[in-house]
Amino acid sequence: MTEFQSFNAAVLVIGNEILSGRTQDANLPYICQKLNKIGVYVREARVIPDVEEIIIEHVLSLHKKYDYVFTTGGIGPTHDDITAASIAKAFGREVEFNEGAIKILTARYGSHELTPGRKNMARMPVGATLLQNPVSAAPGFQIENVYVMAGFPEIMRGMLDCLIKDLQEGEPVQSITLRCKLLEGDLAAGLEEIQNEFSNIDVGSYPFLKIGEFGVRVVLRSQDATGLQKAADKVAALMRTLGDEPILESEESF
Amino acid sequence: MTEFQSFNAAVLVIGNEILSGRTQDANLPYICQKLNKIGVYVREARVIPDVEEIIIEHVLSLHKKYDYVFTTGGIGPTHDDITAASIAKAFGREVEFNEGAIKILTARYGSHELTPGRKNMARMPVGATLLQNPVSAAPGFQIENVYVMAGFPEIMRGMLDCLIKDLQEGEPVQSITLRCKLLEGDLAAGLEEIQNEFSNIDVGSYPFLKIGEFGVRVVLRSQDATGLQKAADKVAALMRTLGDEPILESEESF
Repeated sequence: MTEFQSFNAAVLVIGNEILSGRTQDANLPYICQKLNKIGVYVREARVIPDVEEIIIEHVLSLHKKYDYVFTTGGIGPTHDDITAASIAKAFGREVEFNEGAIKILTARYGSHELTPGRKNMARMPVGATLLQNPVSAAPGFQIENVYVMAGFPEIMRGMLDCLIKDLQEGEPVQSITLRCKLLEGDLAAGLEEIQNEFSNIDVGSYPFLKIGEFGVRVVLRSQDATGLQKAADKVAALMRTLGDEPILESEESF
Repeated sequence: MTEFQSFNAAVLVIGNEILSGRTQDANLPYICQKLNKIGVYVREARVIPDVEEIIIEHVLSLHKKYDYVFTTGGIGPTHDDITAASIAKAFGREVEFNEGAIKILTARYGSHELTPGRKNMARMPVGATLLQNPVSAAPGFQIENVYVMAGFPEIMRGMLDCLIKDLQEGEPVQSITLRCKLLEGDLAAGLEEIQNEFSNIDVGSYPFLKIGEFGVRVVLRSQDATGLQKAADKVAALMRTLGDEPILESEESF
């Protein structure tokens, strides 16, 4: 069997507002999809509060376990933005006003509007590499394999879109989705057989329910495009055997 | 200072479809808000794939760390639904066809439509307590402090709404949100002073940006309703000093 190159990653969402239920995280799907396309797979995500010792614990544990770690949240100008200082501490580094970041912020705000709060956004671990922010200037940073991004979705996306070109690329996962109006319980036995036959294809079954319509989406994912098509053909045949004509929904790479 | 009773919880989202970016998790905000209202606080959430050893590792780690653990996903009828078996293994229990669950499924599907796949939804750890599913019948289950729920949002909500009455209750968190059209960088110094004065109030600052409008929401959260109001008054005064009249946005308990 061909071995496909891939890299793995974890996402660390930092923010009390997510755990209070006030804000629904919208960053994880974007990060996962974007990284999938270059063969980097998010294997785990965690949501944690803005608490220094908790940030340190999780950053270090994910840093050791994965090729890349992406954090979101906690790098703004206010007192509750403690991500940069916590990550510096995690790696045993001092915090400094990053010279490059000060330049960017001064260009953006002018020196008279660079309040102490805004200037705080330039406080980063010694030795950090800046991550460009094409939306609102204030940069994120990278230290070791940890990429520290804003939590605000538009800004996070801008940062990720810029930094992604510097990551190592693996073979992207392809996916095929087949939709049908059958019930999961009727598909179960046949799907299991197909999964057992194709060990390098991930066969997922997801029921859906809308007013007046129900059914199942079967999502097949793999780096092996040939095997993927073969397995999808078998799933389509299974659906036909059970009495429904499958609809090919998307072949996007997520 | 008064000590307020509270319990803590973790949420474990189990599902490849969340980590591929195909599906945005919609369960976490609902769970967090619902639990907040009874004084149970979600301190951490994790998203992991449908892989037995990974499920076992995270269930055990969260089980030891928190009063309650809520899992979502992986309890349907298909081969990729491995949550029940994995959790049984985590607690060193055998898996059995739960008698109560079989009764419920037989009543729902009739014995001739109870396919092997559907019957699998009754496979649970020995000694599990059933969690009622008012939406689609197939029950979740509880074992030790772990509550195993469906991933499908409507079903998860139904299950949580039923089981919540059996949890221990703490003092609910109250919150006050003040919105203004100021910039975070201008509020930063004043907010920090207020946070330092009120150590038992969580003062969060969240910028927003819509077409034609930008500003900051300051969210104050605490179990101490009196302190909360005092701190909110100071935040409102700060906003006025900086030239904007704050808008009181909500006093909901999240």
